[in-house]
Amino acid sequence: MKKIKVAILGGTGAVGQKFVALLDNHPWFEISEITASSNSAGKTYESCTNWREITPIPERVRNIIIKNCDEKLNSQIVFSALDSSVAGDVEKLYAKNGHYIFSNSKNHRMSERSPILIPEINADHLQIIDPKNFIVTNANCTTTVLALAIYPIHQKYQITELIVTSMQAISGAGYPGPSANDIMNNVIPFIDGEEQKVETEIKKILGTVKNSTIVFDEICASAHCNRVPVFDGHTVTVSLKTKKKATIQEIENCYNDFSSITTNMGLPFAPKKLYNLFTANNRPQPKLDIFSDNTMAISIGRLRPCSILDYKLVALGHNTIRGAAGGSILNAEYCVKTKIISI
Amino acid sequence: MKKIKVAILGGTGAVGQKFVALLDNHPWFEISEITASSNSAGKTYESCTNWREITPIPERVRNIIIKNCDEKLNSQIVFSALDSSVAGDVEKLYAKNGHYIFSNSKNHRMSERSPILIPEINADHLQIIDPKNFIVTNANCTTTVLALAIYPIHQKYQITELIVTSMQAISGAGYPGPSANDIMNNVIPFIDGEEQKVETEIKKILGTVKNSTIVFDEICASAHCNRVPVFDGHTVTVSLKTKKKATIQEIENCYNDFSSITTNMGLPFAPKKLYNLFTANNRPQPKLDIFSDNTMAISIGRLRPCSILDYKLVALGHNTIRGAAGGSILNAEYCVKTKIISI
Amino acid sequence: MKKIKVAILGGTGAVGQKFVALLDNHPWFEISEITASSNSAGKTYESCTNWREITPIPERVRNIIIKNCDEKLNSQIVFSALDSSVAGDVEKLYAKNGHYIFSNSKNHRMSERSPILIPEINADHLQIIDPKNFIVTNANCTTTVLALAIYPIHQKYQITELIVTSMQAISGAGYPGPSANDIMNNVIPFIDGEEQKVETEIKKILGTVKNSTIVFDEICASAHCNRVPVFDGHTVTVSLKTKKKATIQEIENCYNDFSSITTNMGLPFAPKKLYNLFTANNRPQPKLDIFSDNTMAISIGRLRPCSILDYKLVALGHNTIRGAAGGSILNAEYCVKTKIISI
Amino acid sequence: MKKIKVAILGGTGAVGQKFVALLDNHPWFEISEITASSNSAGKTYESCTNWREITPIPERVRNIIIKNCDEKLNSQIVFSALDSSVAGDVEKLYAKNGHYIFSNSKNHRMSERSPILIPEINADHLQIIDPKNFIVTNANCTTTVLALAIYPIHQKYQITELIVTSMQAISGAGYPGPSANDIMNNVIPFIDGEEQKVETEIKKILGTVKNSTIVFDEICASAHCNRVPVFDGHTVTVSLKTKKKATIQEIENCYNDFSSITTNMGLPFAPKKLYNLFTANNRPQPKLDIFSDNTMAISIGRLRPCSILDYKLVALGHNTIRGAAGGSILNAEYCVKTKIISI
Repeated sequence: MKKIKVAILGGTGAVGQKFVALLDNHPWFEISEITASSNSAGKTYESCTNWREITPIPERVRNIIIKNCDEKLNSQIVFSALDSSVAGDVEKLYAKNGHYIFSNSKNHRMSERSPILIPEINADHLQIIDPKNFIVTNANCTTTVLALAIYPIHQKYQITELIVTSMQAISGAGYPGPSANDIMNNVIPFIDGEEQKVETEIKKILGTVKNSTIVFDEICASAHCNRVPVFDGHTVTVSLKTKKKATIQEIENCYNDFSSITTNMGLPFAPKKLYNLFTANNRPQPKLDIFSDNTMAISIGRLRPCSILDYKLVALGHNTIRGAAGGSILNAEYCVKTKIISI
Repeated sequence: MKKIKVAILGGTGAVGQKFVALLDNHPWFEISEITASSNSAGKTYESCTNWREITPIPERVRNIIIKNCDEKLNSQIVFSALDSSVAGDVEKLYAKNGHYIFSNSKNHRMSERSPILIPEINADHLQIIDPKNFIVTNANCTTTVLALAIYPIHQKYQITELIVTSMQAISGAGYPGPSANDIMNNVIPFIDGEEQKVETEIKKILGTVKNSTIVFDEICASAHCNRVPVFDGHTVTVSLKTKKKATIQEIENCYNDFSSITTNMGLPFAPKKLYNLFTANNRPQPKLDIFSDNTMAISIGRLRPCSILDYKLVALGHNTIRGAAGGSILNAEYCVKTKIISI
Repeated sequence: MKKIKVAILGGTGAVGQKFVALLDNHPWFEISEITASSNSAGKTYESCTNWREITPIPERVRNIIIKNCDEKLNSQIVFSALDSSVAGDVEKLYAKNGHYIFSNSKNHRMSERSPILIPEINADHLQIIDPKNFIVTNANCTTTVLALAIYPIHQKYQITELIVTSMQAISGAGYPGPSANDIMNNVIPFIDGEEQKVETEIKKILGTVKNSTIVFDEICASAHCNRVPVFDGHTVTVSLKTKKKATIQEIENCYNDFSSITTNMGLPFAPKKLYNLFTANNRPQPKLDIFSDNTMAISIGRLRPCSILDYKLVALGHNTIRGAAGGSILNAEYCVKTKIISI
Repeated sequence: MKKIKVAILGGTGAVGQKFVALLDNHPWFEISEITASSNSAGKTYESCTNWREITPIPERVRNIIIKNCDEKLNSQIVFSALDSSVAGDVEKLYAKNGHYIFSNSKNHRMSERSPILIPEINADHLQIIDPKNFIVTNANCTTTVLALAIYPIHQKYQITELIVTSMQAISGAGYPGPSANDIMNNVIPFIDGEEQKVETEIKKILGTVKNSTIVFDEICASAHCNRVPVFDGHTVTVSLKTKKKATIQEIENCYNDFSSITTNMGLPFAPKKLYNLFTANNRPQPKLDIFSDNTMAISIGRLRPCSILDYKLVALGHNTIRGAAGGSILNAEYCVKTKIISI
């Protein structure tokens, strides 16, 4: 099969580099175009990127000439790693011009005709999309981990309330991110806008489609978001209440029995086993468990009763892969495979 | 005033060293005797201690000859930094012999006639103590931070439910504590026995004395305890529900208006201002805020509504000082000052 | 080609796990037997290993039944990850029984008829080996990085003096290794036995074979070894004096022009390009550069004159892969390919 | 004694804050004026400072109104914490107006009539100063540690050659300093301009005054400067050659016998014992030893022979106190006490 050419908007920053690294040797996609700020336009990718990934810059990307962020693109599939200060308009522009946008930015997440796609949860949300303004977003990194972590329980027993505390990695703040003076040997109990994103996005992600509109789920989430000195991997502690009650064993079975729509579709970025369920009570840990199943799995541990809501657990996922660039790639794979987009 | 001679049980370990460092130049107390395991007995303190505090070993402690853990002591006041594997019996033995025990160990916390004393909260619990078996315990370090953090709200509006996630420092695990391989760049979502301690102790600490017994408070707490790569300082995120409702401003006033019984007693280890209330939303942070008010204050930040319970906040305290050795010293000071013990 | 069965001595510890992880999917070798202490013998690998690698235990290794450290083995090639407290005798025993030992332990490094093999430097040393006592050692991890780092200069201009300061990763101390209390936010200026190993081994590695004996090189090294809070990768600063003088450009050319005996032999663990030479003056850095060329390359930077000796540079290599398990595997590959051992 | 009013130039930055924290409760000096950039001028110190010290802003400094960097000052003694981009001219301006400048900036260090003062080493250098342009500088932080570390040996046996590798704390880079992404789990083998400063300044510091000029010492130093993930404290490994040879015991005696001019002068910032000499071979360590003797001592360890030069050792000092603000304060104290400046 001839590979599908793709473009990356904002390809020189931290998220952009992650797209470049992850798409190297992708069996379906091939990076063909990269845009960046006007300072970089006209230069080779290698010459204007402060490359921070531990794998080298892929050979074929080194010499790609950076385009401006409003320049015409030939690739139908466009991954957006743009900063939210510019993503809104630029993504819309390319979408209007017929490109399929898979965005990692927050700007269009709450737009009525753009889904926040997590294919294992809400692939049906794609039906609400405006084909003339094709923008598929992925969720905020913490929301992604949380939504996937609770979905098997929600599906079966309907979660109504959720209290979550996140311990988030510094990579979530981009590069350079927090100074060592600020975060080494420290916890910062605040991440601007994060709690509100978690509390809002989760309702849309778990929503149901009625009359070509997403009706938000009634789940109510309350979040405490913290930054901790961890490079990669967002850990969340979760207390939750369900409408229908279940035993801990039944809750555990939700994960064991979970069958994802993506499992047998042959999507390169779909984890073989979505949930990595631990019984050892000191797991999951970001240092040990973020890479499981090609870094796209969600790790779950410490399932137990909560004396206030009903159940408690700990969940973990890789924030810049599962929760950002890798998630967007999976979304694009899903849309290609299901022919929702015609390439 | 002539100083009161005190003894330290288990004075060579991490908690014991903290007692030694904190009691240096104490205006009332003077370390006169130190016990340790039989390996160390008969040696000088300096020769058998792997000193880890950043201040030097106090001059007068260097040459104290270590006693065995069952040896006769002359000091009436005895601080116990014993490991819980031996603390139970040893503390009881010394108490039976008429010593006043101020213990940092968990063993007697739930004993019917030993209070878990936090003088700012429950000094009246001292009336239930058996004078022939005088053992005053302090709470688990996380419980101490939590109990002090919520007490002003509880006092006025009665907290009924509490969901707490802790991000605990490695010093809480003693020395050597977790290996760098295990905790650097990591979060460990489990601390053995910790959640149960928090959930149980809080009920006793907030209890009321009736007929010489502590009637446990009805507060229900659910805890998620985590270890993070921070040297000192336990941070907790708290969601809580109250019986009587209040505005956020009223909740904030609980701290501003709080008057501690200890404030004007002239106790050397009592903080001048118990609560360090932050309005900046990225505070408190362990690296910056654990030392406030002589390391005995509790820092509170991010007071805001919780969409599930009623209010949310972040609290922080120094785990080995306020939450351990310093807490015991304050307890002893309180008992001396109020003549609950006769020296 | 049918894979060659290999055994790992001490396969459950940190170095042993590294062998297991690295040999997974090795094109030539297949782990067939694993030994460990008598506590583990008879159990499956999975059940008695506290697995710490971030890749999962390879499927075919999970259920290997652990053998005792003196049990008969069927594999001709035996990798030793034994602790030095037992490695000496156990390796000798298996060697006497006709196995080819590739050892990561220090015990036989200075034995007259065992080479310290780094194929890119001293493959000819293999001729001194006693075929009835076939033990090939690899160098200490710091020595490996240093020897490879200076070899191209030594080869051409003959280094006579060498002052080296190492900044070594905690993985060099095995698992659990140093406690976070001891090494986080710290430098420990001492590693037991390390300086002596560096100073001694380098002379043998760079020695020449005369009359079936290795005549040690006259190079004189003086080492300062330090532990720093880095997970993987030993960084060394080097000042060196040469017999023949050269310009910095000529010194740089030593690396550019270096041709390794291993380059075109098709050895799976031989790096394509042995030296990763940096011109940016803030490189190499362990966090960014240890993985280069399949983690088997040596990174070199900051080539410049030294006002006391002749030249200065910084070098970096992965201590547990290039400097330990990966080095042993490369040694075995070399011996297989050159038919020094007959399988 | 009435306190002497002092001013701080650039008092809101990291070094400026260190001056403010250290001068709180200083027995001789009292902060009376603070300058900063024009953005801050006219505001209170508290309102325009992102305070990062762990002690609170001193009460009397909170409300000091910031002055512009060229505004008239009333304080005779002026501490400069200015960035080197502006320090040169501003310091000269105030010096011309009759102020006594004690500068932490590099700008005037190599000026012919400004000494790099370390009173324990070269108090006599003060005689070369131009009284109409009174600028006393302190050395670069690494140079300070190094110069003090070797001085007792140099004084007695005359050091001719010196190879030094530094492992420097992040606080040396100011605030915010390196990002956690860049320095956590890493070593950066380069600090811009640092090696040159060390190699040059040491010659002036150890120089001798002849005909009102400092004749530079002939010592030749070669430096490798590295940044490591440590908050405070620069560690250096040193190999050195002396003109006159000595035994290790004699070298050790240099430290034991050293008598500092400052010892009995009653200077508040002079350490009682300048050298903290360790025999335990795993010391000094920044985490444990930077605070010794009021944070103004230099720790020395691992004295041993060097097989290339003559001796090896490890030294450690606090970079922002002994090596920066504290050093300037000591310099001012020395000048006041000896009446070199008339207040």
